[in-house]
This record gives sequence, structure tokens and C-alpha cells, in this order.
Amino acid sequence: MKLIKSILEMQQTADLLHRNGAKIGIVPTMGYLHEGHLSLIREAKLHADVVVTTIFVNPVQFAPNEDYKKYPRDLERDILHASSAGSDFLFVPSVEEMYPPDYLTFVEVEKITSILEGKSRPSHFRGVTTVVAKLFNIIKPHIALFGQKDAQQAIVIKQMVRDLNYGIKIIIAPIVREEDGLAMSSRNVYLSPEERKESTVIYKSLKRGEELILSGERDASRVVAEIVRYLNTQPLVKVDYVSVTDANTLGECSVINEKSQILISVAVRVGTTRLIDNIIVNT
Amino acid sequence: MKLIKSILEMQQTADLLHRNGAKIGIVPTMGYLHEGHLSLIREAKLHADVVVTTIFVNPVQFAPNEDYKKYPRDLERDILHASSAGSDFLFVPSVEEMYPPDYLTFVEVEKITSILEGKSRPSHFRGVTTVVAKLFNIIKPHIALFGQKDAQQAIVIKQMVRDLNYGIKIIIAPIVREEDGLAMSSRNVYLSPEERKESTVIYKSLKRGEELILSGERDASRVVAEIVRYLNTQPLVKVDYVSVTDANTLGECSVINEKSQILISVAVRVGTTRLIDNIIVNT
Repeated sequence: MKLIKSILEMQQTADLLHRNGAKIGIVPTMGYLHEGHLSLIREAKLHADVVVTTIFVNPVQFAPNEDYKKYPRDLERDILHASSAGSDFLFVPSVEEMYPPDYLTFVEVEKITSILEGKSRPSHFRGVTTVVAKLFNIIKPHIALFGQKDAQQAIVIKQMVRDLNYGIKIIIAPIVREEDGLAMSSRNVYLSPEERKESTVIYKSLKRGEELILSGERDASRVVAEIVRYLNTQPLVKVDYVSVTDANTLGECSVINEKSQILISVAVRVGTTRLIDNIIVNT
Repeated sequence: MKLIKSILEMQQTADLLHRNGAKIGIVPTMGYLHEGHLSLIREAKLHADVVVTTIFVNPVQFAPNEDYKKYPRDLERDILHASSAGSDFLFVPSVEEMYPPDYLTFVEVEKITSILEGKSRPSHFRGVTTVVAKLFNIIKPHIALFGQKDAQQAIVIKQMVRDLNYGIKIIIAPIVREEDGLAMSSRNVYLSPEERKESTVIYKSLKRGEELILSGERDASRVVAEIVRYLNTQPLVKVDYVSVTDANTLGECSVINEKSQILISVAVRVGTTRLIDNIIVNT
């Protein structure tokens, strides 16, 4: 695996790969790679000749009160992980090069970015779409992989790709979980042993919501209420939001339709750590 | 010259050109081609193996009160002109395909888009950068040509290309003028004979401003005042703005520095027609 830090070198490398007719897949990450990321790299290998994993803790997608500074970073460990998962290149640009002092341009998807995560984190998706657009322009991949854990991000990026005519195939890979069900996240390292234990309620509450829907509940507000009740059984877990929406459009669905794909999304704080998770239910 | 109307066909054509190692130049236009556009096509031929001229009257860059509907269109004439200037492809996408009903994504350059033209036309540049980003993504050109007449647009697009890492070389070609000095514009067809005659004052006023600066005037407000006075000698010409700025950054310069590039920009209404023009003065 080759490590690339300069944008120009990445561009020139990508250009050469393109001229050689290689199909390029990218896996954009913020590093501190876990099994979820590695599953994306392995999946990318199945669809592309060359896989470029990118690591960039993107300041623009963090609000000033968020965890940009303390976000976990460990490049040496990431190099080993990405390499053993089969990544061909690891692109790790610097903040200075990605956002020079007179930086002024942003890519914004409207409407679907102002609900759920966007409501709790108002400028978050603008940061995500901007940095993903930059990575797309630098590497010009044929496919790009993202994880289902960031369900709304996946929908927002698909919308951006379609609207801006990127012609890139977006593949969303399933959530990878710890043995006790907690969705893998680089932020899980923030959790104290007690918090870590209580965090297992998140996935259990999603499964409880799924169970309700599959047993015939069609009133979304009752599903939400039951999940909130379930989450609140753990004293360290504070609910940010629980929502039941259409899984493809994020449209509201107060009545759950038959033969539809329903996304149950949860965001909580466990101590000072914010965690999200979701499940798709096919009715 | 090949006419392409479908986005997918243009993407596939561009992909094939890329695989064949062709250097692609694009000339984005709103059609109703005049000698200014044709000079861009001829210039593009000098820098690229294949020139794609695009014609798209972009609704997103017009405000509701502007001339989107009446903007002149004549595809047959444009085909002849673009072809004879040496364009290899003419890409003419439809509004329906460029902006499907659930379109949500916009590219925005901040700060430098809220002055001059952006002050008079608040959502204009957001429309320009969005459509240019789409064309860049569809065609993935190596170079792109724009006219100096839209001086601020040229600076905004250069900023977007740099910020979003497009890796595309932007070439700005000089303003082409009628024999009496009026800058060529598709909008000149709107002018009545009387208005057309009075419009010659625009370039004359710019030359008057240049003359003042070259003869040593260093107070920008005096240059502006003299240009406004000069424009006001024509009863049908109403000044929108006259500005003296740094030619590269559009930064204000109340005092004109030595050995700098100064941009004098003018926007006027002649009857209901809005016209812009500019001149660069090297002190």
C-alpha cells in the first residue's frame, strides 16, 4: 500500500490510473479505522481494480462545540489496518492543503440536510458534502463506499452525486457491530466502561422498534415512544432524537405503509459522547 | 461537429476521449453565440485536442425578475457558428435533465460573490458555480475557457476550481468588441437603435477611467465619479454600479497602488437591458 499526503501527487496518481484504464474505488474515512471501515475496503476490492482509502478528520463538518480536536487519530495503526484489508493507496491530506486560509467554496444539499442529524448538527452535512466533492474531484473514482451507520449521510451523498452529475456509483455497506450489538464507531473509545455497557441499549432499542413494526404496529409515534422509553431505562443514556422515516427519501411517515422500507434512526448522548445508530425494516 | 443532448451520452463520450488520452477543453456558454464566444472556441483549439462547446441557458443563475424567458436562443445558428469556429462537440442538455424536479444541490463561493454583480444579482453566482461544477463533472475537461467580459465570474470560477480541487486550467480570453467599442453580448440584440447608439458610452467611459489612472489619478472615488458623470451624459443609460478594485482578488482599493492590476467594472441599464463591461489597467 502506498501512502500519499500531497493533493497534487494524489491527482497525478489518479490520472495515471485512469490512463491505464483502472477502475478506482474510494473509501472516505476520518481514520481510526475499525472493522466497519475495513469491511468497506474489502467490499471496494470486489468492485474496483484499485482501492484508495482516504483519511481526513474534516474540520468543516464539526461545529465549534464538537469533538474535532479530541477525535481519535492514529495513522500508524490505520496504515497497518488499511493495508491488511487490501487498500492500494492511503490518501491522508493535510488540513492546511485541503482548506488554505482563503478557502471560500462549499457544496450544499438542501432540505434533507436540515432534519435528523442536520437538525442537531446544522453545518455538519455542508462540511461532509464539501469534503466528499473535493475527494471526488481529486481522485475521480468510479465507485465510492460509505457505511450504513451514517444513514442520512449516505442519502445526502447519493443526492449530491446525482444532482452534480458525478457519475460515481455509491455503495452503502451494512453496519458492523460489536458482539453485544453496539455499532462500531471510532467514537466508542470515548466511552467509560460503565457508559460502554449502557450503550448496548441503543441497538436493543432499535431491535425493539423493528419487532413492533414487524408485529403490525403502523403508528410511527408509538414506535418512537417505545424506543425512547427503552433508551431511558439506562441512566447515562440521553436521547437526542428517535425517528421513523422512509429509508430512501428520509420523508416523514407518521403512518407506516405496507411493503415499504422504514428507517429507524437514533441519536443519543452517553456521557459526553454522541452516538448514532439505525436499522432498516422492510414491512 | 457532433451535437449531444443527453447527459449520459456526453459522459460516455468524455470517458472514451479520456481513455484515448485526449486533452479536452470546454467552452461553457448560454448560446446565441457571437464573436466573443467564437474567439473562446478558437483559443480552446490551441490548448486542447478536443473542444466541447456547451450551450445551456441556466435558469438557476437568473432571478425571477430577470430575462431567463426572453434570453435569445437560436440553436441552428449556434450549430453553424460553433462548428465553423472548430468546436468538435456541441453539448446542449435540457433543463429537465439538468434540474430534475427533486434537485437539491448547490455549489457556492462565499464573500467574493456578494459584491458587484452579486450585490445586484444575489443568487446569480450560486447558479453559475453550480452549473459549471455540473458541466465539469459531466465532461471532466483539462481546460475551460471563459470570457473576460464576465470578470467577476472568471475570478469566482477560478476560486471554485482551486477550492474544490478540480485540477482544471481556467483560461480567460479578452473581451471582443464591436467596431464602436461595445462589448459583444448576446443581450445586445435587446437594444433599440437609439439604445444601441447610447451604449457606446460604456466603453468610452471605461477608457476615460483608464486615462485618468494612467495620467496619475490614485483616488479611486474620483475615477468612479468621472465614469459615472460620463455615463450619465447619455439619457437612456442608468448606472447600476461603477467600481475600481484589485483585478485579481476584487478587493477594494480606495487608493490605487503603483504596479498593480486594477479592474474597472461597470454595470448599467439601457432601457430594460442590463449590460456589463470592464477594463484592466496596469499601473
